[in-house]
Amino acid sequence: MHFAVLVFASVATMTTFGLDNGLMRTPPMGWLAWERYRCDIDCKNDPKNCISENLFIDMADRLFEDGWKELGYVYVNIDDCWSSMERDKDGRLQPDPNRFPGGIQHLARYMHDRGLKLGIYGDMGTHTCGGYPGTTLDKIEIDAQTFADWEVDMFKFDGCYSNAVEQELGYPLMSKALNATGRPIGYSCSWPAYQGGLPPKVNYTQLGQICNLWRNYGDIQDSWNSVLSIVDWFFENQDVLATAAGPGRWNDPDMLVIGDFGLSMEQSRSQMALWAIMAAPLFMSNDLRTISSGAQSILQNKMIISINQDPLGIQGRRILKEKVGIEVFWRPLSNNASALVFFSRRTDMPYRYKTSLSKLNYTTGSYKFTDVYTGKTDVLKDSTEFVVSVNPTGVVMWYVSAPGKLKYHPFIRGGKLHGPAYDAEENTFPRVFL
Amino acid sequence: MHFAVLVFASVATMTTFGLDNGLMRTPPMGWLAWERYRCDIDCKNDPKNCISENLFIDMADRLFEDGWKELGYVYVNIDDCWSSMERDKDGRLQPDPNRFPGGIQHLARYMHDRGLKLGIYGDMGTHTCGGYPGTTLDKIEIDAQTFADWEVDMFKFDGCYSNAVEQELGYPLMSKALNATGRPIGYSCSWPAYQGGLPPKVNYTQLGQICNLWRNYGDIQDSWNSVLSIVDWFFENQDVLATAAGPGRWNDPDMLVIGDFGLSMEQSRSQMALWAIMAAPLFMSNDLRTISSGAQSILQNKMIISINQDPLGIQGRRILKEKVGIEVFWRPLSNNASALVFFSRRTDMPYRYKTSLSKLNYTTGSYKFTDVYTGKTDVLKDSTEFVVSVNPTGVVMWYVSAPGKLKYHPFIRGGKLHGPAYDAEENTFPRVFL
Repeated sequence: MHFAVLVFASVATMTTFGLDNGLMRTPPMGWLAWERYRCDIDCKNDPKNCISENLFIDMADRLFEDGWKELGYVYVNIDDCWSSMERDKDGRLQPDPNRFPGGIQHLARYMHDRGLKLGIYGDMGTHTCGGYPGTTLDKIEIDAQTFADWEVDMFKFDGCYSNAVEQELGYPLMSKALNATGRPIGYSCSWPAYQGGLPPKVNYTQLGQICNLWRNYGDIQDSWNSVLSIVDWFFENQDVLATAAGPGRWNDPDMLVIGDFGLSMEQSRSQMALWAIMAAPLFMSNDLRTISSGAQSILQNKMIISINQDPLGIQGRRILKEKVGIEVFWRPLSNNASALVFFSRRTDMPYRYKTSLSKLNYTTGSYKFTDVYTGKTDVLKDSTEFVVSVNPTGVVMWYVSAPGKLKYHPFIRGGKLHGPAYDAEENTFPRVFL
Repeated sequence: MHFAVLVFASVATMTTFGLDNGLMRTPPMGWLAWERYRCDIDCKNDPKNCISENLFIDMADRLFEDGWKELGYVYVNIDDCWSSMERDKDGRLQPDPNRFPGGIQHLARYMHDRGLKLGIYGDMGTHTCGGYPGTTLDKIEIDAQTFADWEVDMFKFDGCYSNAVEQELGYPLMSKALNATGRPIGYSCSWPAYQGGLPPKVNYTQLGQICNLWRNYGDIQDSWNSVLSIVDWFFENQDVLATAAGPGRWNDPDMLVIGDFGLSMEQSRSQMALWAIMAAPLFMSNDLRTISSGAQSILQNKMIISINQDPLGIQGRRILKEKVGIEVFWRPLSNNASALVFFSRRTDMPYRYKTSLSKLNYTTGSYKFTDVYTGKTDVLKDSTEFVVSVNPTGVVMWYVSAPGKLKYHPFIRGGKLHGPAYDAEENTFPRVFL
């Protein structure tokens, strides 16, 4: 019986379902409560930080007033622990009445009045990860309709307390149910993270058809170790992951923890740079009311945001791992441009890394580059040797453009002298040899 | 033959040698080149950062002009890679002529003219760790005399390229040789770090007689992982280590990396707080020319420095490890005072830790406390429950004094209700049960 259902569902998802909501043609940007605020429901003793409508209104006010919205940070996303422990008499989810006395629709309208959007959270399973009511298969349609009725703009579907069969059915069903409401609702799927993140268990072709973004890997924590483990996993598996991403469908390495407690300024610049290379969703999870000016200026760096938001939507890759602990990352951008990141894993002192654009497989020519953090600009021939000084756990990031029009997009060759060229028309990638 | 030498030396060190230089009655403070500048000798391409007299003059100028000296940061210490690859014709060490054209004595006088002190580095062995000439047993006297002739004020004796027998002979001999010069030279011994840091291999009684400070453990790196591994080791072995420390003889958990690239502001506050609890030498290794105001204000915090420099010179301890990731550290201070540090190992969000001074084994009474980072002051009864909000990887640190004179020093009892009291007269510690 279970087997029959599974086969039926699998066939159905490959053929009938599809996420045709036109949303998130560039990676979504905004703010998400989880990493920084978790399941803090102690509004009596911790009123400024507990999961309540006040927290989301506070963050919306900051996004609106402090220059975030204009840069693209428009989503204000609720995560776990927002709901009442019981559904209402009609079987609908309802917010905790003490912490969200105005209701979710009130919050959505507060966002919309300010040009912002509201995201909400649910769980494919009997309970959310925090123990609140989950969305079992029979509740998918009613919950999708509830979110649409509330005028919600984005929905994250977690996967605690369900098995693989239920997930295989539920994630596509929710996609269909959201579409069926007629309201455009961005759909974030935690499904692949519950499947281990890799084929053959994960079907990235299907995910791109049903979800706008998906969490591939474990939750980020407020530590450099956590950021590094995520970076390692995503770039070790870049051949599988990069081809899955594109306009409307994004790999999600999880939130930005810039502005929290665990990252140095160097490490914060590194997370921002590498998330831009990955074409990752940019959801901050921090306290925008008290964020330092240093962290704010990293998160508000216009050139990095424009790299992240490049309309081609091509996920970048690691192209070099040097034994000395320097790594180079590259992402092709529109207008014949590209982004380069020089990253140091060292923990001693700034490393003077010597290379040339031709060593990084740029074609013959002259290139203008801008250091996105210092604003320094210069022109380099592909053959010119240069030195970048990369701080421990830090990056140097360049936006590289070709002042003369190149016949072909700057490309990465597999290996040193030969291999398939990057083909901008077909949006396919060569295998990059590390 | 070797055995006979060893036995003779061991007996000799226990009876005749002794460090009677009257120096470093409180933990030494200053600046040390190693962690931040390593063995960078590339003055052609990296002139501002290479190991040269210019670097030490730059740092001396900063210590003198930016308020460091008045706070106690007076040592400017050269580490490895300062010397020529050859001794001079008389067998003396000599500085690299290109990088130290003025010579070491010139540098020492530059320091002394500004109320600062100069430290230098050598290695008990055939070579320094960086491959420069070492100090073999037959060179100990001439090297000690050379440093004294140069008017050097402190000497760090590393231990690469020597065996246990040579170290057993060399470290005490150098102590005797430095004393014999008649110049007061603070003596930093890396010996115990080469012996694994613990008895029975390490004899801390002997070390206290021959060295002013000693490195017990591995080198610090510019990362929170490194700071944590040092903190773990020192507090796991606190019963052995704390009794070894006192005025003129200090355990050295290695340099402060505050102001470098790897620590967040929270983590920087934590290193400073825990180094103060440990009565650790405070040697910064950073770039004082470009240090951020945030890092500078942590390093220049007067109350933490006064805790570090407390004249009793008692090394503090960890008194509690909570399963939730909160740890409490305590150090008894002069004037019936004490320091408390609440430290969080969490990587999620601020933790609201509830406790009382009586739960931390303070005796009945009323205590005034000052939060050393915020300046907030209040009075607490021992029985009053309070909450401290401790940030991830951060600390809350209090200076606690008793407004009413207490008959006995506030003490820690072993276990909850009984055990030996702290005896201020005898400077002995109870065993603290964790």
